[in-house]
Amino acid sequence: MIHLKSLGLEFKISPDSKNCELLILDQTLLPNKEKWLMIDSTEKMIEAIQALRVRGAPLIGVAAVLSLAQSASQGLSTEELRKKSKALYQARPTAVNLMNCLDRMNLSSRDSVIQGAVQIFQQDVELCEKMGLNGAALIADGDQILTHCNTGGLATAGIGTALGVIRKAHEQGKKIHVFVDETRPLLQGGRLTAWELQKLGVPMTLITDNMAAHLMSQKKITKAFVGSDRIAANGDFANKIGTYSVAVNCRYHNIPFYVVAPSTTVDPKCSDGSQIHIELRKPEEVTGVNGSFGNVQWAPQGVNVYNPAFDVTPATLTTGWVLETGVYNQQEVVKCLV
Amino acid sequence: MIHLKSLGLEFKISPDSKNCELLILDQTLLPNKEKWLMIDSTEKMIEAIQALRVRGAPLIGVAAVLSLAQSASQGLSTEELRKKSKALYQARPTAVNLMNCLDRMNLSSRDSVIQGAVQIFQQDVELCEKMGLNGAALIADGDQILTHCNTGGLATAGIGTALGVIRKAHEQGKKIHVFVDETRPLLQGGRLTAWELQKLGVPMTLITDNMAAHLMSQKKITKAFVGSDRIAANGDFANKIGTYSVAVNCRYHNIPFYVVAPSTTVDPKCSDGSQIHIELRKPEEVTGVNGSFGNVQWAPQGVNVYNPAFDVTPATLTTGWVLETGVYNQQEVVKCLV
Repeated sequence: MIHLKSLGLEFKISPDSKNCELLILDQTLLPNKEKWLMIDSTEKMIEAIQALRVRGAPLIGVAAVLSLAQSASQGLSTEELRKKSKALYQARPTAVNLMNCLDRMNLSSRDSVIQGAVQIFQQDVELCEKMGLNGAALIADGDQILTHCNTGGLATAGIGTALGVIRKAHEQGKKIHVFVDETRPLLQGGRLTAWELQKLGVPMTLITDNMAAHLMSQKKITKAFVGSDRIAANGDFANKIGTYSVAVNCRYHNIPFYVVAPSTTVDPKCSDGSQIHIELRKPEEVTGVNGSFGNVQWAPQGVNVYNPAFDVTPATLTTGWVLETGVYNQQEVVKCLV
Repeated sequence: MIHLKSLGLEFKISPDSKNCELLILDQTLLPNKEKWLMIDSTEKMIEAIQALRVRGAPLIGVAAVLSLAQSASQGLSTEELRKKSKALYQARPTAVNLMNCLDRMNLSSRDSVIQGAVQIFQQDVELCEKMGLNGAALIADGDQILTHCNTGGLATAGIGTALGVIRKAHEQGKKIHVFVDETRPLLQGGRLTAWELQKLGVPMTLITDNMAAHLMSQKKITKAFVGSDRIAANGDFANKIGTYSVAVNCRYHNIPFYVVAPSTTVDPKCSDGSQIHIELRKPEEVTGVNGSFGNVQWAPQGVNVYNPAFDVTPATLTTGWVLETGVYNQQEVVKCLV
């Protein structure tokens, strides 16, 4: 029996590989409701990824390959698995971990698929640990850290990327305070990061996205850590919309700005950030909010909306790249990424 | 009979000054409901100001003196009016128009109070016209303008400050497009500015606050216009939270950033922005949203919140000050303000 469990995902498979259970914590319902959803097909997993029930670049990749492993356990042929993989591949366009993890899968046999998926899950846990340790070394007593979106246990199979770094520093006994950007429109900061940090007992303050610069001007933020959905070969990277604004503000205020991501987030085929495809999402996310807490729409009917889910931060605005292998500056990271 | 009417306020007084009606459009209910509230005491007006039913720095000042005029029409003595004025003075701390308008009132007789208040209303309409013309001269065909919060007909007795400038340019036939920051936490952009621009037929796109920088990086924003709640003697100014982040991003992207405000917004007693008192508001505004559209709370219970209603933008980040008397750069404006 193999049993894998993270904050937002659970996978069980019997020794004969015939019984497989895959569950995800529906993140759209957090923090009000903790509801686990049974996933029994790649179609259901694709819906869950597109609706952001499963989210976070690393976790999307892990969830996709575990869904493929479940399909393999159900007896699907290599040909059928290939089709499933293709469909999963297109679930969301920006986070490259999805494509990278699917590309790594050997679809030739049931066992190869299941082993590959389990390995990717376990590897993600290890990558998080290593990034956590590498990044925590950058944090000192008294640091007041800004973070954006959710990059913790809900976004990965392990302790997270940027939030994993913060957690490690806290667990090492460093006295830190975290400022959490709410991260409009989907409120991953206000709903998910606030929930994770509260559970972990890390001192934190919730703010709206547009308050971060004001805090910086008052010297209340000493460092910023964010995650990434895709890192181009030159170090430019895509991350949740609003990240770029944080980066510009950090530069203006001379605040170190770090991106934390595993090598599964690197896309060497993207020469720079301009090559990264940015997902556009529906207007209703901006004209209101919708979740287990309720569905309200405040903007006037029929208003025109622009809703990019991500933006690109250029390498020139990034102080350091925290990867599982170490912390790099721009000159160094370019060599690591290709 | 005197009858004054703006987008958010109505005042009628009989020729014998004994019957006075004061109504405000409850802006917390917009755009879903257009409900006018009868105000019959300064206590009710103070509640309306504190709850942001009446808002916008210039309009707060106008509303306060009209409320005082109503008290005068009800036969209150100079001594009683002085007490009412003192209470109105403290309704909200940051917008200095409130204090400036109240300071200008001659409380010695019923007529002097009514005449003074009517004059302040009419003057605000004229100030808006002049600022509108001065600012519109800065706008060219093809400009894509970012604005923050609401600075239009709902925020003044006239056409507005920053939004008045945009309206004038549109009425002059200039082909412009407006990007409206939603302006968390209270959504004055998403609710009020979107509503006003839709009514006026000005082409616009609603975005979340954290998307503005991304648009700038794509060269989709050519100018930014914002309002102000208090301008210090050195040109630093307070405005709705998030303004400072817009200013920093404009500087980084070399985008002209203008503040539009009447002389009633100037506080020569404030030497610089650090002297401006920033109002802190309740956590519930950040942990969720509340309005006629519904009341939802998404952040985990008991989470720590920081909620400043304003921030300060230094003069050094401001390209130009659009006042009723002209457009000034930093060197020029310092002479105008004192």
